[in-house]
Amino acid sequence: MKIVKTIGVNLGKRSYDVTVGVDLLSGVGQRVAALGRYSSAAIVTDSHVGPLYADTLRQSLSAAHLAAHVLEFPAGEEHKNLSTYVDLVNRLLGLRPAIDRRSLIVSLGGGVASDLGGFVAATALRGLDFVNVPTTLLADVDASVGGKTGVDMAAGKNLVGTFHQPKAVVIDSALLASLPQAELISGLGECVKHAVIRDESLLDFLSAQAGKILLADADVLAELIARNVAIKAAVVSADEREAGERALLNLGHTLGHAVETAAGYGAISHGQAVCLGMAAACHISAGRKLLTAQQVRRVTDVLAQLHLPSRFADLPSLPEQARQAEHLKPILLHDKKALAGVVRFVLPVALGKAAVFSDVTGSEIDAALAMLAR
Amino acid sequence: MKIVKTIGVNLGKRSYDVTVGVDLLSGVGQRVAALGRYSSAAIVTDSHVGPLYADTLRQSLSAAHLAAHVLEFPAGEEHKNLSTYVDLVNRLLGLRPAIDRRSLIVSLGGGVASDLGGFVAATALRGLDFVNVPTTLLADVDASVGGKTGVDMAAGKNLVGTFHQPKAVVIDSALLASLPQAELISGLGECVKHAVIRDESLLDFLSAQAGKILLADADVLAELIARNVAIKAAVVSADEREAGERALLNLGHTLGHAVETAAGYGAISHGQAVCLGMAAACHISAGRKLLTAQQVRRVTDVLAQLHLPSRFADLPSLPEQARQAEHLKPILLHDKKALAGVVRFVLPVALGKAAVFSDVTGSEIDAALAMLAR
Repeated sequence: MKIVKTIGVNLGKRSYDVTVGVDLLSGVGQRVAALGRYSSAAIVTDSHVGPLYADTLRQSLSAAHLAAHVLEFPAGEEHKNLSTYVDLVNRLLGLRPAIDRRSLIVSLGGGVASDLGGFVAATALRGLDFVNVPTTLLADVDASVGGKTGVDMAAGKNLVGTFHQPKAVVIDSALLASLPQAELISGLGECVKHAVIRDESLLDFLSAQAGKILLADADVLAELIARNVAIKAAVVSADEREAGERALLNLGHTLGHAVETAAGYGAISHGQAVCLGMAAACHISAGRKLLTAQQVRRVTDVLAQLHLPSRFADLPSLPEQARQAEHLKPILLHDKKALAGVVRFVLPVALGKAAVFSDVTGSEIDAALAMLAR
Repeated sequence: MKIVKTIGVNLGKRSYDVTVGVDLLSGVGQRVAALGRYSSAAIVTDSHVGPLYADTLRQSLSAAHLAAHVLEFPAGEEHKNLSTYVDLVNRLLGLRPAIDRRSLIVSLGGGVASDLGGFVAATALRGLDFVNVPTTLLADVDASVGGKTGVDMAAGKNLVGTFHQPKAVVIDSALLASLPQAELISGLGECVKHAVIRDESLLDFLSAQAGKILLADADVLAELIARNVAIKAAVVSADEREAGERALLNLGHTLGHAVETAAGYGAISHGQAVCLGMAAACHISAGRKLLTAQQVRRVTDVLAQLHLPSRFADLPSLPEQARQAEHLKPILLHDKKALAGVVRFVLPVALGKAAVFSDVTGSEIDAALAMLAR
């Protein structure tokens, strides 16, 4: 058990610590015991992660005198929906001995487990404490911190949910050894995003350590995760409910979501979609002389080193309709973050700095898509 | 339009006003316009109330330049469930033009509309503003104020939901003219409860005005509602999430819920169940010499004046199993408010004052049930 860094998310009464290290899974019980006295626990996990790690987690909780049930749901983004939520809530409320207001929810898995488990925790008995134990790089650096919970709907992603902060997040980089490389790479997309909006030097780290990162070296990954969580924590601490700065984390997401939707969920990864959106945002910034062509290339070079796309050609499996402005633009207008029909874009205004713009024109979007199509 | 009283619920950034008066429905739009600029509105109402009042409300919002859709759900407590919730959320997200984060939810109806509409508002796009326009006395004095939202589950009432405070509550006592008398009386049960826990003089008011109250006199009802909302607002302001004082509002609810559950939903009204529970609590207090027999009689006399039960004999339709300790006690142990198997009872410690007790014994419960059975 090696703790690399403990990062505080400062939200007044809802503050919590994110512990990042190597081989921490068997220490989760100890961490939970330090939070307070719970009456019981329920581990919400998926059918891929559960068989790998749920037993270790349950034993760790049990050693800390906390009996835990495991509630498994079918793995896959397509199960992040209200039907899985209803099923989980019903099973949770059917547990015997019955849960009470001092019961704890522990999410174990990727972003789906954290979003679903968090939503269950937010709403069961009108709100239970929960702890996140992420098992994918994407969840480590994104979903596990910040308190966004929820599910996807036919009308779009994450359209139903709440803000419900965890009481603690425990990130064990050794768990990433079992992660398929494609998912590791998807998480790296968010790391590049963090670098572009808040920390230019993180681009250098990603570039210098790309080799070890792609081999899932647990020590290097722990350092990478700690740097990224520090950025996310600072942004969330400044703006819990996405009224301002937190919106910067949506760099690449506006167009990325549109590409994901047009492609059909699952055709490409969330990280790949965000990278395309981020590349497009960089091109728009270059067009506005906010970035130089060289700076844009520095970003796209790091993406390439990490096997991440910055052009449509990098993703041969991307369907044709997900590359075309006439399909993407109507989806942009229905984005959850659109206000009264105005689409808001996050654009880099320098490397390591970004801002929200509401004046991006249709022809700027067309020009950026043309760059992606080269 | 006559405003009788405006009562503030003080919860820091989540503070809001409750406006109580006569003929206020057509002024809701004006009230909403004073809250801020919304992009659209959705009225969540049931199939009884919608046909009576939704058009007036929609026109009022429209006059304030806010286009409103009406989302109607089937009337009845049995529809306060996750399936109705899922249906409402899907219809809300399917509206065109699409809702956005500046869309407003307006609940119009009894407690079910307020609980369901509030839960939809709490979770759609991770939280929309909402306004409550209650149309039953019970919702006026209870559900519409305090931010409890949610649905019933097979395992029990209100087991899934959130705390999500409204931005405003508008209470029009004239709407109670259309309320079946049984429902008016159900709401009066909560008024007696408020008197017992916080305001002895309210017992005198209820007793002196019983005649006009039962005839649904709009002016007397507005005064009654204002007094009760003031009590509820003070309790909620002191303890938003029911960590302490707010639990006093559960006087009569522990046993009342058990009786309701044992009887089967719908066999008796929520108000009737609470009155039986309140009478039982008074008997337990008398047994502990916290109340005199005369004080207990004062409470049960007011209940009788208002056609509310204080003994099983007052409710001939109450099934036999809902009167028997061996059926009620196992349900008590599964109460949502039970902590680690300990049932917490609210007991009057004087008239107008109450406290939470965790040491009520099985034989005290037996003795109280015997008093109800006389």
